[in-house]
Amino acid sequence: MTEDRTHTTAPGHLMAAEISEQPQVLDRIASTDTEPLTALVRHLQGHPTRAVLLAARGTSDHTALYAKYLIETQLRLPVGLVSTSTFTGYGTRPDLTGVVWICVSQSGGSPDLVESTAAARSGGALTIAVTNTPSSPLQDAAQLHLPMLAGPELSVAATKTYTASLMRLWQLVTAWSGGDLAPGHFVSKVAAAALDLPEVAQVASRYRFVDRMVTTSRGFAYPTAREAALKLMETCYLSAHAFSGADLLHGPFAMIDEDRPVVVIVPPGAGGQMLDPVLDRLTERGADVCLVGATGTRTAQVRIPLPEDLPEQLAPIVQIIPLQQLALQLALSRHHDPDRPRGLRKVTETT
Amino acid sequence: MTEDRTHTTAPGHLMAAEISEQPQVLDRIASTDTEPLTALVRHLQGHPTRAVLLAARGTSDHTALYAKYLIETQLRLPVGLVSTSTFTGYGTRPDLTGVVWICVSQSGGSPDLVESTAAARSGGALTIAVTNTPSSPLQDAAQLHLPMLAGPELSVAATKTYTASLMRLWQLVTAWSGGDLAPGHFVSKVAAAALDLPEVAQVASRYRFVDRMVTTSRGFAYPTAREAALKLMETCYLSAHAFSGADLLHGPFAMIDEDRPVVVIVPPGAGGQMLDPVLDRLTERGADVCLVGATGTRTAQVRIPLPEDLPEQLAPIVQIIPLQQLALQLALSRHHDPDRPRGLRKVTETT
Repeated sequence: MTEDRTHTTAPGHLMAAEISEQPQVLDRIASTDTEPLTALVRHLQGHPTRAVLLAARGTSDHTALYAKYLIETQLRLPVGLVSTSTFTGYGTRPDLTGVVWICVSQSGGSPDLVESTAAARSGGALTIAVTNTPSSPLQDAAQLHLPMLAGPELSVAATKTYTASLMRLWQLVTAWSGGDLAPGHFVSKVAAAALDLPEVAQVASRYRFVDRMVTTSRGFAYPTAREAALKLMETCYLSAHAFSGADLLHGPFAMIDEDRPVVVIVPPGAGGQMLDPVLDRLTERGADVCLVGATGTRTAQVRIPLPEDLPEQLAPIVQIIPLQQLALQLALSRHHDPDRPRGLRKVTETT
Repeated sequence: MTEDRTHTTAPGHLMAAEISEQPQVLDRIASTDTEPLTALVRHLQGHPTRAVLLAARGTSDHTALYAKYLIETQLRLPVGLVSTSTFTGYGTRPDLTGVVWICVSQSGGSPDLVESTAAARSGGALTIAVTNTPSSPLQDAAQLHLPMLAGPELSVAATKTYTASLMRLWQLVTAWSGGDLAPGHFVSKVAAAALDLPEVAQVASRYRFVDRMVTTSRGFAYPTAREAALKLMETCYLSAHAFSGADLLHGPFAMIDEDRPVVVIVPPGAGGQMLDPVLDRLTERGADVCLVGATGTRTAQVRIPLPEDLPEQLAPIVQIIPLQQLALQLALSRHHDPDRPRGLRKVTETT
């Protein structure tokens, strides 16, 4: 049945439907029975944690990056994104006593993630699998499980599992650090308001013939820049290049000119302030900028306005939505099917 | 005097000279008095370390990534690359007792690195500054210092400080884990053999009109792919996109076609073997591939051969050299001055 759905309908209809489903998924996550999360957090709070390690690939790697910022600022623990090849290629088997290992994967099926998680568990780590499929080798390999609760995702380009996993990691880290989960209830409403913004079509039209693009942001919104670039690469085959605003100024800035548009995601709070020097430099260079964020005083060639109703830490869950739609619309305008990008399968198995 | 040298001579002469100087710098590092290194390592070995954190930007961030692989495989400690904005933007002041903090910076002058290193030290971390300038605010902020020993670097595009810092981090981690520093003595000879390979000019000619490119590798050589892409971005303004071979297969692979060349750095050992499935997929897609590495049985459109005389962990110090020269030659063929890329200064100050 799944096969029929992916082959007999209009290009991009799966991705479009899954993008639109996000407010509903986020509402489900916020209002779901919190007892499994509470049990998981009880485990973590009883665990003397010396460091946290995160393992993920692709879209889930951007969820891991978001979680890294949360862990650094809320839990104030040393945290790193692991190189799975250390385990799978170089056969390292470290003593990870006192380490919490969080592995994020929609399918829970990639051999490198399963093998490294099993090795981390053998090495003494407390391992958590964050997956979307109802059962998976990754879930079996880890002691604890946090389901993404996004429902089946059929488009190859991940959308709702990204925002669902951001929300789940926010819940996990917030509850683990003893914080308040109540702000999570507002996310679905703001996400609904960010769906189908008319400005997205204007930007898609402006970028119809673009083949190189830069995306940038800082802090909690930097993963948004990374994920937006990945969506544009996988659905439109664009050379979309993501940088943290600070890294952009170290070297890559030389390639900025008036012919390579720059999408700047401007979050509320400190992240937005940290982008001020970056935006100043982009203006000096005459870059063609698209601002994604609350309407401020800064001018730019184009803008995708976002409601400023969420705290900075939760804003990434909504920021990505118009950028997913930008990728979808750009792909369709170029006659690509974003549900089935060339050269990709839904489950990527790497070792 | 420095000003005169940078303004009155041929474009790229500084970068060319600093690339050529690398065997000599590497020889100096290998044969330098090891007493300061030994003293530093004594500190580390007497320190009960729960995790290692690395902080860096730009080229030095690739040195930090290389060090991450070394620390994961040799020291088997949890390790992460920190987001300095956690300290500078969000004002987090974590308890980092038992953490070793290593900050890598050619100039030692960027405010974000100085502030986050000072905060890590106040939070109880044992802090090490790896810098090239004789004195710097970063060196003052940290307890311990490891000099890069590259000598003054004048070209904006960093070359010799990259290989020097790789070598210094290799020495540091190897000595810290009780390993043998002797193999380091062979690096300068192999580096000399990798200078001025005639194949580089052939590849530069083939890529004269390229505007988008992908670089890839895995494991210890993945930082080489990242640094090669950065050199191409900053000197040639190319959209050069680096991926680990595994990440490339998750999404970005869709953008690979016959019109976007792919530079694959094939290291000796496990890293090279892990690239086999990536090379298979690239061949299937009809990608135009440049292989950088030892001459194996695999065919490709072009190849830059490298001597296979170094163990995989040391190979990155040499692999980057022909790719630095590729960036230099491509920049000159496009009438850009790689010593003074547009929009950049030698010392980038980010907050």
